[in-house]
Amino acid sequence: MIKVGIVGGTGYTGVELLRLLVRHSGVELVVITSRSEAGRAVADMYPNLRGYTDLCFTVPDQAALKACDLVFFATPNGIAMQQAPALLAAGVRVIDLAADFRIRDISIWQHWYGMEHACPELVKEAIYGLPELFRKDIAKARLVANPGCYPTAVTLGFLPLLKTGKASLDSLVADCKSGVSGAGRGANAAMLMAETGESFKAYAVAGHRHQPEISQNLARALGEEVKLTFVPHLLPMIRGIYATLYARVGGDVDLQQLYEQTYADEPFVDVMPAGSHPETRSVRGGNMCRIALHRPENGDMVIILSVIDNLVKGAAGQAVQNMNLMFGMEESAGLDLVGLLP
Amino acid sequence: MIKVGIVGGTGYTGVELLRLLVRHSGVELVVITSRSEAGRAVADMYPNLRGYTDLCFTVPDQAALKACDLVFFATPNGIAMQQAPALLAAGVRVIDLAADFRIRDISIWQHWYGMEHACPELVKEAIYGLPELFRKDIAKARLVANPGCYPTAVTLGFLPLLKTGKASLDSLVADCKSGVSGAGRGANAAMLMAETGESFKAYAVAGHRHQPEISQNLARALGEEVKLTFVPHLLPMIRGIYATLYARVGGDVDLQQLYEQTYADEPFVDVMPAGSHPETRSVRGGNMCRIALHRPENGDMVIILSVIDNLVKGAAGQAVQNMNLMFGMEESAGLDLVGLLP
Amino acid sequence: MIKVGIVGGTGYTGVELLRLLVRHSGVELVVITSRSEAGRAVADMYPNLRGYTDLCFTVPDQAALKACDLVFFATPNGIAMQQAPALLAAGVRVIDLAADFRIRDISIWQHWYGMEHACPELVKEAIYGLPELFRKDIAKARLVANPGCYPTAVTLGFLPLLKTGKASLDSLVADCKSGVSGAGRGANAAMLMAETGESFKAYAVAGHRHQPEISQNLARALGEEVKLTFVPHLLPMIRGIYATLYARVGGDVDLQQLYEQTYADEPFVDVMPAGSHPETRSVRGGNMCRIALHRPENGDMVIILSVIDNLVKGAAGQAVQNMNLMFGMEESAGLDLVGLLP
Amino acid sequence: MIKVGIVGGTGYTGVELLRLLVRHSGVELVVITSRSEAGRAVADMYPNLRGYTDLCFTVPDQAALKACDLVFFATPNGIAMQQAPALLAAGVRVIDLAADFRIRDISIWQHWYGMEHACPELVKEAIYGLPELFRKDIAKARLVANPGCYPTAVTLGFLPLLKTGKASLDSLVADCKSGVSGAGRGANAAMLMAETGESFKAYAVAGHRHQPEISQNLARALGEEVKLTFVPHLLPMIRGIYATLYARVGGDVDLQQLYEQTYADEPFVDVMPAGSHPETRSVRGGNMCRIALHRPENGDMVIILSVIDNLVKGAAGQAVQNMNLMFGMEESAGLDLVGLLP
Repeated sequence: MIKVGIVGGTGYTGVELLRLLVRHSGVELVVITSRSEAGRAVADMYPNLRGYTDLCFTVPDQAALKACDLVFFATPNGIAMQQAPALLAAGVRVIDLAADFRIRDISIWQHWYGMEHACPELVKEAIYGLPELFRKDIAKARLVANPGCYPTAVTLGFLPLLKTGKASLDSLVADCKSGVSGAGRGANAAMLMAETGESFKAYAVAGHRHQPEISQNLARALGEEVKLTFVPHLLPMIRGIYATLYARVGGDVDLQQLYEQTYADEPFVDVMPAGSHPETRSVRGGNMCRIALHRPENGDMVIILSVIDNLVKGAAGQAVQNMNLMFGMEESAGLDLVGLLP
Repeated sequence: MIKVGIVGGTGYTGVELLRLLVRHSGVELVVITSRSEAGRAVADMYPNLRGYTDLCFTVPDQAALKACDLVFFATPNGIAMQQAPALLAAGVRVIDLAADFRIRDISIWQHWYGMEHACPELVKEAIYGLPELFRKDIAKARLVANPGCYPTAVTLGFLPLLKTGKASLDSLVADCKSGVSGAGRGANAAMLMAETGESFKAYAVAGHRHQPEISQNLARALGEEVKLTFVPHLLPMIRGIYATLYARVGGDVDLQQLYEQTYADEPFVDVMPAGSHPETRSVRGGNMCRIALHRPENGDMVIILSVIDNLVKGAAGQAVQNMNLMFGMEESAGLDLVGLLP
Repeated sequence: MIKVGIVGGTGYTGVELLRLLVRHSGVELVVITSRSEAGRAVADMYPNLRGYTDLCFTVPDQAALKACDLVFFATPNGIAMQQAPALLAAGVRVIDLAADFRIRDISIWQHWYGMEHACPELVKEAIYGLPELFRKDIAKARLVANPGCYPTAVTLGFLPLLKTGKASLDSLVADCKSGVSGAGRGANAAMLMAETGESFKAYAVAGHRHQPEISQNLARALGEEVKLTFVPHLLPMIRGIYATLYARVGGDVDLQQLYEQTYADEPFVDVMPAGSHPETRSVRGGNMCRIALHRPENGDMVIILSVIDNLVKGAAGQAVQNMNLMFGMEESAGLDLVGLLP
Repeated sequence: MIKVGIVGGTGYTGVELLRLLVRHSGVELVVITSRSEAGRAVADMYPNLRGYTDLCFTVPDQAALKACDLVFFATPNGIAMQQAPALLAAGVRVIDLAADFRIRDISIWQHWYGMEHACPELVKEAIYGLPELFRKDIAKARLVANPGCYPTAVTLGFLPLLKTGKASLDSLVADCKSGVSGAGRGANAAMLMAETGESFKAYAVAGHRHQPEISQNLARALGEEVKLTFVPHLLPMIRGIYATLYARVGGDVDLQQLYEQTYADEPFVDVMPAGSHPETRSVRGGNMCRIALHRPENGDMVIILSVIDNLVKGAAGQAVQNMNLMFGMEESAGLDLVGLLP
């Protein structure tokens, strides 16, 4: 049993971590902090947890966190980089579910996140927590940067194709759609149900923070830069990310076989049969990424459909998967979650 | 053409007033105020109005408002009572869509709304703007208190039955359900789509401000007090109020005929055939109140189903209906709105 | 490991049983029948199950079913009563998720279900599968009638109060609301999303099949008949039942304490703190029934709020709970399901 | 007043035509046919129309239809081509809301619609009812082929850009999303709310009937073939189409100015300010097409966002617009419909 703490557990990634960890047999959850909700029972704020935990939110307390084996940061951007150094120095391992350690080029990070980075040297050390790419490094990491939700779906969807060398890297398109829980639990009039229900729109077409993260992932794997157009949209539903990916390919390649082989041993990537249309609900509440491949009329446009639950494989579930790797537990421990359908 | 102003037009009752007034041939909309959005084009904030109005929000300006024939207050509770006296003194008529003038007993109002009333003497003068009850008074009114959404649906549903004298007045139940737009457009984490979508709950079971308003309506019409249990619920949808009303009756009474006769000449109350189940979508965007009557197995329990669009007959539409009456226009002018189905 | 079969696994109670059983360590799922989908992989029809089961639907085959220790019927009404006798005779135990064995008075059953009963003698033997009432009988049963969804929520909500003898039994009201999955997966234009989304309505106000089932439950527990008005409504969401229960009480009784004591040892009934407002999402995907009690202004009307997931505690989860009891397994085995929130 | 008939008025395009026509001052609706609902009052099936029409559905009757000035076909594909010739011969004008007359190449039509065309000669005569392209021809037409919903949004969005000659025509992408009402009112298990709510998916990626229609529109306007990848998706909401269009451009072009000029005089195309993100709700229930243009980092990828209400500008509203043109009425008569927001 490892001792685990959560900093900032009142948002959606926080409650989702709780949902997963209270059922995880290898974990003892010992502390969860929230300045605003200190003293309140977790199960009072999140009644789905009634009967599963007696924990109360506490004010952040370094001693309590330093007594943990692992601390998750489910905080807004810019918090983990302040607090992680001291925890690491105390021998605590850290998984940041925010973006503080995701972008390796500090100037790019500072441009997109609008603040100065507090510990650039740790960015170098941090391992990007996408197990399908960096499983071995994660297992040895002190500090894991848990990937963004869009980057998880897009990277897993695009990579096997791009690695063939047969796709044009100068005109990739990722038309992505996310449920509203991706915007978090902050009080924001734009995310009211009366604003987002029964409607659909693109947002941030001029530029979104997940674009440099995706581009970095692809460039690292390919060894060269790509030109990616990324358009996020807001879906009138709560959970789920859908990435519709477009790439032009030249020449023959059996993509179906390639993807099936690439992900054959992955516990959380499911390549569906040729011609499938994955649905977000098939992964609702689960840690799976489902992928399907299309090449209409065997032309030069390949379409890849990639779906995840943004709060699970796109956040808390992937964090637990990383935790399992870091502590030598079964990679899928606590993640036997069948998608909730209907 | 009457000159009309709106104070506080950025909320949902404000935009709904705009939707109705920009198409109303007897109205010239001359000013709409908002301290927070002053200078911004209305159609920039509400793109559905693009092409229908060039008006911009302005800072509240007494001179501009005093030049109007009518001013609507689409403000939070407590604002109209501050500003209405000066406007009335200047000869402007006023319709308050908030609750400042709805409750005739000042102490009850102050108890439920948690503030001191700024002009109790105007409460006496104010006419309760339910045309089906007070049409003649409204026509002559300087100041109209536009009814609450729940009170509109419940009062229209209950009254004809209760007036028969055959129902027990000591155990009335109004089990009511509202779409989320009833909570307004304020930034409130509890009303995020991720909080209210795909879920359902009762709220304020211990007591809700609309209860004294409903009780007052019934008592005024009946000449005696009633005992009403009122339980509001929040629906995972945007528009619509559904009131399921329960009353015990003794003796025979042809309720279907009674209701049909009572409302025969009402342009905005529709008594459906016996055995009907009204749907909120049948009144979505329209000013109709649809009512259906049930008496299972001809027993002693009568069930009345009453539906409205909370933003139209429950707010802005009823306000326009009142305006039409006050200025001698056709009562249904600007209100030829077929429910948006599907 | 017990061997389990499912007859009619293509509907929502079927897929929900599968979701629960594929993760149940004490169960080997050996056969699932569907005439219409015979030959098709279960995971092809329900992609959330990809990776969890390789089973294919098969044509109903008595031999395969008779080799099971337990057979679930997730079929339309009227099927289980045809097939259960032969299975029972072969020593197989049976849980029927439909209504064939729920109503003890055959004439009442035949009136509401519109067909002749095929095996009235088994109705006498069948145990009504509400563990909170009949746990010991269930443990010894050959044949369990799994309760309806509304009856589960209403019975658990009403019973402790009614047993005090202080409530009027002649004017009980159950105003109930259900998500659309309660209507099943049949092709039915009235249940299209374009018909049921963003709208709300009561239905079957004149009479609903679950009313005699609820009345029977209450009368059996109380030893006298009750007069219950039951009005079901359709919610624009997928999962969840909300029962708002009204009863008039005379005299003092500490209901909060009573309910907490009554359900203290129940693994799947959660009495919330006084003044709570349960939400359906707090039980989404889980087997919990959450109950809260209100008595506004300490008057004579008590309001009980009771919520379940109609597909779990209202169907498949309760069936698994019954299975656990019948086979001496831990009652909550396979049911460690935290509600999916948000 | 022109006399108008509707064949097949029970589907969503039918009820939407009714919603528009009952308020249209230049139209007398004289007959609406439906074999399945003959004898039933229209307002009984569609209660939003109660008070607006007393019409009943009738069995199809050639004499009644031939007495009309105009007949709308709101029927499934393949019906209008059977009945239009006789009506045209009788001097009745016809607008087909289905696809029978949209595709000029009969073999392509027969390939995609899977039936033999009944009157290929009329296909030549039929005018494609997109007023922004063919206004003058429509005004003189006997037979109008009302465009598909996706083709309306995509064609209006793409055309001005493509006509500049600066976009690559070999890699156009139209990533489109539609509300569920686009699938019609047929009983279809795949379109149940429990199947489509709270989920999202692409469909028909291998090929969709609207692709040849879009390609035809673009090719006719450009004088050369284009290569278009079209991927439709299903949104968990009722009304609205969102087209996210991608094209690579070379060289400078002030697209914002170009689009504003192109559509300056169009009553139903609204080019939003640069950088806007249109929402489907801004056109809900209205006949507007809203378009916004993006060119991130002034690169070579242009993104065009185009939204309509699939039942209005994508079907019934456009049909009324065509009717107005055909009969010399004000083009926007009966179409003063502000989008229903929220």
